[in-house]
Amino acid sequence: MNRISIIGGGNVAWHLSQIISKTKELQLVQIMNRSIKSIESFQKFGEITDNFNKIKPTDVFIISVSDQAIAEVSAKLPKDILQVHTSGSVSMEVLQGNRKGVFYPLQTFNKNSAVNFTDVPILLESNTKRDETFLFSIAQLLSQNVSFVSSENRLKIHIAAVFANNFVNHLNYLAFNFLAKNKLNPKLLLPLIQETASKLQEVNPYDAQTGPAKRNDVSSINTHLINLQDLKLESIYKTLTQSIIETYEEKL
Amino acid sequence: MNRISIIGGGNVAWHLSQIISKTKELQLVQIMNRSIKSIESFQKFGEITDNFNKIKPTDVFIISVSDQAIAEVSAKLPKDILQVHTSGSVSMEVLQGNRKGVFYPLQTFNKNSAVNFTDVPILLESNTKRDETFLFSIAQLLSQNVSFVSSENRLKIHIAAVFANNFVNHLNYLAFNFLAKNKLNPKLLLPLIQETASKLQEVNPYDAQTGPAKRNDVSSINTHLINLQDLKLESIYKTLTQSIIETYEEKL
Repeated sequence: MNRISIIGGGNVAWHLSQIISKTKELQLVQIMNRSIKSIESFQKFGEITDNFNKIKPTDVFIISVSDQAIAEVSAKLPKDILQVHTSGSVSMEVLQGNRKGVFYPLQTFNKNSAVNFTDVPILLESNTKRDETFLFSIAQLLSQNVSFVSSENRLKIHIAAVFANNFVNHLNYLAFNFLAKNKLNPKLLLPLIQETASKLQEVNPYDAQTGPAKRNDVSSINTHLINLQDLKLESIYKTLTQSIIETYEEKL
Repeated sequence: MNRISIIGGGNVAWHLSQIISKTKELQLVQIMNRSIKSIESFQKFGEITDNFNKIKPTDVFIISVSDQAIAEVSAKLPKDILQVHTSGSVSMEVLQGNRKGVFYPLQTFNKNSAVNFTDVPILLESNTKRDETFLFSIAQLLSQNVSFVSSENRLKIHIAAVFANNFVNHLNYLAFNFLAKNKLNPKLLLPLIQETASKLQEVNPYDAQTGPAKRNDVSSINTHLINLQDLKLESIYKTLTQSIIETYEEKL
């Protein structure tokens, strides 16, 4: 049975601890973090500790801390045991051990929201064939969507994910906020938000586009701009409308 | 049995024709359009015509044409029969008949993508109690989510929908395109896109936000900007990152 230890107390560490503790072919040895307080809720998944001098024998350390802290945490761990990090943006080479890799789940995680891990793409990298095989054997127990990706390509995928998740979520926040400020119920948007995503399972986003910017419908665009009554929203509206117009202008 | 006629050949007209033709308590009398060619595929839902002189008796005309064409189409229809349009942005008052209303389904429609109408918010408006009641009786056969909204508030909801659908879809397009240009598979993003939407059914978008901009992680942000290698993407990245930073800066 493969033994896994996790370092970190954030959303990714929480979801990995949960899924690994539920997977009967895997043993979650320890969850470690500088602050024991922030991993108290992890106790239901396994043993927790803040003492890096009491590290138990394991087959792999999954370092799931902020990008800036990866190198420092890595330096505190035994050199001869495989270490992997879970970051989209950070090169595998920042790890300080002799055996290194990446175990990047391409998904957005919040502690309060359940995730179906089976669909989550897990992007792997390692510097030896042996550790690649080992990481693959673990990852495929968690997901049906496992692949090997270089650090350079992983960064590109992560950047695309910033657009498709971070920026998309922020636009949804702005839409919710605009309705709330106008005393309208933001939840009216939920079926639209769901369909906007679901549609892309069948139709590519170029063909899925609708709305006034695609048609370069200047009259509707101006009506919207006048009614935003918020300089920041106007600026975002103009930037994205211009980008949509440019995307479709050959076809108009 | 209430009789409905539809004018228009676009995505909304298509989905309304489909759902009305399937609803046994409703009779789809005619689908009309200037160009018969663009409604040939509507024939499976009911009678089609391009001859506005051959209008059959009906209880309501649903005008589902481009915003700019609503007034002109409306003027060609009998004055004494209820007319409604399906636009988010256009005032009810542009209609030229004596009895007018709005029947706005708040959803994104493509002919190629099936929509579960039961969840779609239908926003109604009319200038008489009698026609409000009539429109409500039709709408509730199609959806469980029917409400009355003034023209002013409907415009605001439509603007929010532009952010939550049109702009969101475009960001997904940019993310897909960025991966394709870098010879990476855009479909890797599909589970993330789905979860980004699904999460909001439980968590509000303020709390759902993750990523470098929320943490004001300047190092990751700069790494992303350097790797975009596209002026338009950089500009959109900066605009949205700045907006996220401002949203959370009090909390940093």
